[in-house]
Amino acid sequence: MKDFIHQNKIYYSPVEFAMAHIGGVWKMPIILCLGTQALRYGELKERIKHISDKMLITQLRELEERGMLSRTAYREKPPRVDYQLTERGVQALPVIHQLHKYGQTLMQLEGINT
Amino acid sequence: MKDFIHQNKIYYSPVEFAMAHIGGVWKMPIILCLGTQALRYGELKERIKHISDKMLITQLRELEERGMLSRTAYREKPPRVDYQLTERGVQALPVIHQLHKYGQTLMQLEGINT
Repeated sequence: MKDFIHQNKIYYSPVEFAMAHIGGVWKMPIILCLGTQALRYGELKERIKHISDKMLITQLRELEERGMLSRTAYREKPPRVDYQLTERGVQALPVIHQLHKYGQTLMQLEGINT
Repeated sequence: MKDFIHQNKIYYSPVEFAMAHIGGVWKMPIILCLGTQALRYGELKERIKHISDKMLITQLRELEERGMLSRTAYREKPPRVDYQLTERGVQALPVIHQLHKYGQTLMQLEGINT
Protein backbone atom coordinates (compact mmCIF):
# COMPACT_ATOMS: atom_id res chain seq x y z
CA MET A 1 0.00 0.00 0.00
CA LYS A 2 1.38 3.34 -1.09
CA ASP A 3 0.85 6.61 0.74
CA PHE A 4 -1.58 9.01 -0.78
CA ILE A 5 -2.55 12.64 -0.45
CA HIS A 6 -6.15 13.71 -0.08
CA GLN A 7 -7.24 17.30 0.52
CA ASN A 8 -3.69 18.36 1.42
CA LYS A 9 -3.16 15.64 3.99
CA ILE A 10 -0.96 12.59 3.63
CA TYR A 11 -2.36 9.20 4.59
CA TYR A 12 -0.24 6.12 5.14
CA SER A 13 -2.96 3.47 5.02
CA PRO A 14 -6.67 2.84 4.37
CA VAL A 15 -7.13 2.35 8.13
CA GLU A 16 -5.88 5.88 8.74
CA PHE A 17 -8.18 7.18 6.01
CA ALA A 18 -11.15 5.40 7.59
CA MET A 19 -10.28 6.84 11.00
CA ALA A 20 -10.17 10.35 9.51
CA HIS A 21 -13.88 9.83 8.81
CA ILE A 22 -15.05 8.09 11.98
CA GLY A 23 -12.23 8.60 14.51
CA GLY A 24 -12.16 10.69 17.67
CA VAL A 25 -14.29 10.41 20.78
CA TRP A 26 -17.66 11.47 19.36
CA LYS A 27 -18.06 10.56 15.69
CA MET A 28 -18.73 6.86 16.25
CA PRO A 29 -21.32 7.44 18.99
CA ILE A 30 -23.09 9.95 16.70
CA ILE A 31 -23.08 7.53 13.75
CA LEU A 32 -24.35 4.67 15.94
CA CYS A 33 -27.06 6.90 17.38
CA LEU A 34 -28.30 7.91 13.94
CA GLY A 35 -28.26 4.38 12.60
CA THR A 36 -30.77 4.20 9.76
CA GLN A 37 -33.14 6.88 11.02
CA ALA A 38 -33.29 10.66 10.63
CA LEU A 39 -32.95 12.57 13.87
CA ARG A 40 -33.28 16.20 14.82
CA TYR A 41 -30.53 18.05 16.56
CA GLY A 42 -32.39 18.01 19.88
CA GLU A 43 -32.97 14.27 19.66
CA LEU A 44 -29.28 13.64 19.04
CA LYS A 45 -28.30 15.92 21.90
CA GLU A 46 -30.64 14.06 24.24
CA ARG A 47 -29.45 10.60 23.25
CA ILE A 48 -25.72 11.22 23.24
CA LYS A 49 -24.90 11.66 26.87
CA HIS A 50 -22.25 14.16 27.96
CA ILE A 51 -21.81 15.86 24.60
CA SER A 52 -21.80 19.67 24.67
CA ASP A 53 -23.62 21.76 22.07
CA LYS A 54 -20.33 23.12 20.80
CA MET A 55 -18.94 19.62 20.34
CA LEU A 56 -22.08 18.19 18.75
CA ILE A 57 -22.33 21.09 16.28
CA THR A 58 -18.64 20.75 15.32
CA GLN A 59 -18.85 16.99 14.92
CA LEU A 60 -22.03 17.13 12.84
CA ARG A 61 -20.43 19.68 10.55
CA GLU A 62 -17.29 17.58 10.14
CA LEU A 63 -19.33 14.47 9.42
CA GLU A 64 -21.34 16.42 6.85
CA GLU A 65 -18.15 17.74 5.21
CA ARG A 66 -16.84 14.18 4.97
CA GLY A 67 -20.06 13.07 3.32
CA MET A 68 -20.99 10.80 6.21
CA LEU A 69 -24.33 12.42 6.90
CA SER A 70 -26.73 14.82 5.25
CA ARG A 71 -28.45 17.74 6.90
CA THR A 72 -31.94 18.64 5.77
CA ALA A 73 -33.61 21.91 6.68
CA TYR A 74 -37.41 22.00 6.34
CA ARG A 75 -39.27 25.24 5.67
CA GLU A 76 -41.52 24.92 8.67
CA LYS A 77 -42.42 27.08 11.60
CA PRO A 78 -40.53 26.63 13.84
CA PRO A 79 -37.78 25.58 11.39
CA ARG A 80 -36.90 21.91 11.52
CA VAL A 81 -33.48 20.43 10.72
CA ASP A 82 -32.65 16.80 10.72
CA TYR A 83 -29.64 14.62 10.15
CA GLN A 84 -29.40 11.27 8.41
CA LEU A 85 -26.51 9.02 7.48
CA THR A 86 -25.54 8.90 3.82
CA GLU A 87 -24.70 5.60 2.16
CA ARG A 88 -21.07 5.82 3.24
CA GLY A 89 -22.25 6.61 6.76
CA VAL A 90 -24.49 3.56 6.79
CA GLN A 91 -21.56 1.47 5.54
CA ALA A 92 -19.65 2.48 8.68
CA LEU A 93 -22.28 0.92 10.95
CA PRO A 94 -21.11 -2.73 10.82
CA VAL A 95 -17.50 -1.60 11.36
CA ILE A 96 -18.47 0.42 14.43
CA HIS A 97 -20.65 -2.39 15.73
CA GLN A 98 -17.67 -4.70 15.54
CA LEU A 99 -15.51 -2.17 17.40
CA HIS A 100 -18.26 -1.93 20.02
CA LYS A 101 -18.26 -5.71 20.42
CA TYR A 102 -14.48 -5.78 20.69
CA GLY A 103 -14.66 -3.07 23.36
CA GLN A 104 -17.11 -5.23 25.30
CA THR A 105 -14.72 -8.18 25.03
CA LEU A 106 -11.89 -6.04 26.41
CA MET A 107 -14.13 -4.81 29.23
CA GLN A 108 -14.96 -8.40 30.17
CA LEU A 109 -11.29 -9.32 30.16
CA GLU A 110 -10.62 -6.36 32.47
CA GLY A 111 -13.49 -7.38 34.76
CA ILE A 112 -15.46 -4.19 34.07
CA ASN A 113 -19.18 -4.46 34.71
CA THR A 114 -21.49 -1.58 33.87
CA MET B 1 -24.65 1.68 28.44
CA LYS B 2 -23.36 3.33 31.57
CA ASP B 3 -20.09 5.21 31.85
CA PHE B 4 -17.29 3.49 33.66
CA ILE B 5 -13.94 4.34 35.11
CA HIS B 6 -10.84 2.30 34.35
CA GLN B 7 -7.38 3.22 35.57
CA ASN B 8 -8.47 6.73 36.54
CA LYS B 9 -10.03 7.52 33.19
CA ILE B 10 -13.73 7.77 32.41
CA TYR B 11 -15.09 5.97 29.35
CA TYR B 12 -18.48 6.66 27.84
CA SER B 13 -18.80 3.58 25.63
CA PRO B 14 -17.23 0.25 24.68
CA VAL B 15 -16.16 1.81 21.37
CA GLU B 16 -14.16 4.43 23.25
CA PHE B 17 -12.60 1.70 25.39
CA ALA B 18 -11.63 -0.29 22.29
CA MET B 19 -10.10 2.80 20.72
CA ALA B 20 -8.02 3.40 23.85
CA HIS B 21 -6.37 0.07 23.00
CA ILE B 22 -6.00 0.33 19.23
CA GLY B 23 -6.56 4.01 18.39
CA GLY B 24 -4.13 6.63 17.13
CA VAL B 25 -2.12 6.67 13.94
CA TRP B 26 0.28 3.81 14.64
CA LYS B 27 -1.25 1.12 16.84
CA MET B 28 -3.38 -0.48 14.16
CA PRO B 29 -0.56 -0.64 11.58
CA ILE B 30 1.67 -2.26 14.23
CA ILE B 31 -1.00 -4.82 15.18
CA LEU B 32 -1.67 -5.63 11.51
CA CYS B 33 2.05 -5.97 10.85
CA LEU B 34 2.53 -8.42 13.71
CA GLY B 35 -0.51 -10.50 12.79
CA THR B 36 0.02 -13.97 14.16
CA GLN B 37 3.82 -13.99 13.98
CA ALA B 38 6.57 -12.89 16.34
CA LEU B 39 8.76 -10.10 14.99
CA ARG B 40 11.92 -8.42 16.20
CA TYR B 41 12.12 -4.71 16.70
CA GLY B 42 14.21 -4.24 13.55
CA GLU B 43 11.77 -6.23 11.46
CA LEU B 44 8.87 -4.10 12.66
CA LYS B 45 10.80 -0.92 12.01
CA GLU B 46 11.55 -2.03 8.47
CA ARG B 47 7.99 -3.05 7.66
CA ILE B 48 6.16 -0.06 9.10
CA LYS B 49 7.05 2.75 6.79
CA HIS B 50 7.61 6.26 8.11
CA ILE B 51 7.60 5.35 11.80
CA SER B 52 10.42 6.86 13.86
CA ASP B 53 12.30 4.88 16.52
CA LYS B 54 10.92 7.11 19.23
CA MET B 55 7.36 6.55 18.05
CA LEU B 56 7.76 2.80 17.56
CA ILE B 57 9.28 2.35 21.02
CA THR B 58 6.51 4.39 22.66
CA GLN B 59 3.75 2.58 20.80
CA LEU B 60 5.18 -0.86 21.56
CA ARG B 61 5.39 0.00 25.24
CA GLU B 62 1.81 1.28 25.29
CA LEU B 63 0.55 -1.81 23.51
CA GLU B 64 2.42 -3.97 26.00
CA GLU B 65 0.97 -2.02 28.95
CA ARG B 66 -2.51 -2.55 27.54
CA GLY B 67 -1.87 -6.27 27.26
CA MET B 68 -2.11 -6.22 23.47
CA LEU B 69 1.34 -7.68 22.86
CA SER B 70 4.05 -9.45 24.75
CA ARG B 71 7.74 -8.68 24.61
CA THR B 72 10.19 -11.53 24.96
CA ALA B 73 13.89 -11.00 25.59
CA TYR B 74 16.17 -13.95 24.77
CA ARG B 75 19.48 -14.45 26.54
CA GLU B 76 21.51 -14.58 23.42
CA LYS B 77 24.53 -12.79 22.09
CA PRO B 78 23.71 -10.32 20.66
CA PRO B 79 20.53 -10.04 22.76
CA ARG B 80 17.33 -10.75 20.88
CA VAL B 81 13.95 -9.23 21.68
CA ASP B 82 10.73 -10.01 19.90
CA TYR B 83 7.13 -8.94 19.99
CA GLN B 84 4.01 -11.02 19.56
CA LEU B 85 0.31 -10.26 19.86
CA THR B 86 -1.45 -11.63 22.93
CA GLU B 87 -4.90 -13.21 22.61
CA ARG B 88 -6.61 -9.86 22.96
CA GLY B 89 -4.26 -8.45 20.35
CA VAL B 90 -5.14 -11.26 17.95
CA GLN B 91 -8.83 -10.60 18.61
CA ALA B 92 -8.32 -7.05 17.33
CA LEU B 93 -7.19 -8.32 13.91
CA PRO B 94 -10.63 -8.93 12.32
CA VAL B 95 -11.82 -5.53 13.60
CA ILE B 96 -8.83 -3.76 12.06
CA HIS B 97 -9.18 -5.72 8.83
CA GLN B 98 -12.77 -4.51 8.59
CA LEU B 99 -11.65 -0.91 9.19
CA HIS B 100 -9.01 -1.38 6.48
CA LYS B 101 -11.69 -2.60 4.08
CA TYR B 102 -13.96 0.30 4.95
CA GLY B 103 -11.07 2.69 4.33
CA GLN B 104 -10.58 1.14 0.89
CA THR B 105 -14.29 1.62 0.15
CA LEU B 106 -14.03 5.30 1.11
CA MET B 107 -10.93 5.69 -1.03
CA GLN B 108 -12.78 4.22 -4.01
CA LEU B 109 -15.70 6.59 -3.43
CA GLU B 110 -13.24 9.50 -3.40
CA GLY B 111 -11.58 8.25 -6.55
CA ILE B 112 -8.23 7.68 -4.84
CA ASN B 113 -5.97 5.21 -6.61
CA THR B 114 -2.68 4.19 -5.06
